[in-house]
Amino acid sequence: MKKIKALALDIDGTITDSQRLLSINAIKTIRKVENSGIPVILVTGNTAVYTYALTTSIGTTGGVVGENGGVMFKEGYKNNETIVFADKKYIDKAYNYLKENLTKEHQLKIVDDQYCRLSEVAFYRTMNADIIREILKDWNVKVYDSGFALHITDQNINKGITLEKLAKILKINPDNIMGIGDSENDLDFLDHVGIKIAVANASSNLKEKADYVCKKPNGDGVMEAVEKFIFND
Amino acid sequence: MKKIKALALDIDGTITDSQRLLSINAIKTIRKVENSGIPVILVTGNTAVYTYALTTSIGTTGGVVGENGGVMFKEGYKNNETIVFADKKYIDKAYNYLKENLTKEHQLKIVDDQYCRLSEVAFYRTMNADIIREILKDWNVKVYDSGFALHITDQNINKGITLEKLAKILKINPDNIMGIGDSENDLDFLDHVGIKIAVANASSNLKEKADYVCKKPNGDGVMEAVEKFIFND
Repeated sequence: MKKIKALALDIDGTITDSQRLLSINAIKTIRKVENSGIPVILVTGNTAVYTYALTTSIGTTGGVVGENGGVMFKEGYKNNETIVFADKKYIDKAYNYLKENLTKEHQLKIVDDQYCRLSEVAFYRTMNADIIREILKDWNVKVYDSGFALHITDQNINKGITLEKLAKILKINPDNIMGIGDSENDLDFLDHVGIKIAVANASSNLKEKADYVCKKPNGDGVMEAVEKFIFND
Repeated sequence: MKKIKALALDIDGTITDSQRLLSINAIKTIRKVENSGIPVILVTGNTAVYTYALTTSIGTTGGVVGENGGVMFKEGYKNNETIVFADKKYIDKAYNYLKENLTKEHQLKIVDDQYCRLSEVAFYRTMNADIIREILKDWNVKVYDSGFALHITDQNINKGITLEKLAKILKINPDNIMGIGDSENDLDFLDHVGIKIAVANASSNLKEKADYVCKKPNGDGVMEAVEKFIFND
């Protein structure tokens, strides 16, 4: 087993339950890992400022990969600005094109926190993502469905690629990172870490990729994997 | 003792410790209160989107008073937009005037999440707030020092006034709200609730105002007050 020098965690469905409630066992586990000298990184589809609230409240020091790789920060708002990996103006143009080319029966409603999104445009799931992909087929964008919203993002970005950039800043080899996730959009993420863990509630294709599938779901699974592989219990 | 129909909690220093780490006892207490049918309201100087991360992760349903009363939401981003109680354009003008009238030795650095602030302008504490108050003495603004940043805000707004507006939406009489806080900027907040609680680490003038001062600090104090006055232990 490779030496674990950082722990990278997806948020929704991994350190939270399906209702997005934070697992108390996950909080305790993260604090135990941080106190042992191993930084914890949060890797998520959420915005930078939303995730910053969690880094501060839980106490993680490894930084954040947010907006599914579209943004990244090491410290948050004290020292560094958030780095944006997208041509936001281009994404905005694609969004305007989409609005002009939708038929009347399809209504777009932009998410209420769009003003906080730095690398993407997100709107409520009022239609199937395929309709949007068809309209934007000649644009260099990716359209994905997070379950919460539909997102137009830079097609060259994902959680894993941006995590590698954060690992460089942390001076940690991605091979020494243990990553834990639960869903389809964690496939790229786990691809880029050395130790790949899926919680018990993970999608089947993530379980297939994992080195270890937890017996327990969500935050209890995080605690299980950390006790097993970091504290060797 | 009046019947408690909602619990209103300050965040920093009340449900967190002085390093802004969320208290696990506070999370457990909040969830117990919510499960008993009593909504929990977060009352804070933080932004709407930062606080939304906490309402979602902890599981509060009473809504949020944010930016020290400058913003308010009941549900967050699913159903309602955040309501802003300030003339932001006027605040921006005051900020521009400040920038033009500062002497060279005083440098302003706007906070990195200013793009998420809807009712105020905040900048890092690179100078004494009194210098700013002097320059802006003819403007209808309030300048306060949150310990984290300096804020230019609407002078007619505070946590308590906005909490009353949220109470109206919740159809709860403020007299039936138990409020818990720790600092100077919770004075207005406790003024507007029926049951006023100060945690053990609270400032002395807040303790003087309180109906009850907890023996324990921060989240442990929240648990103590809730067990005593809501669950009558």
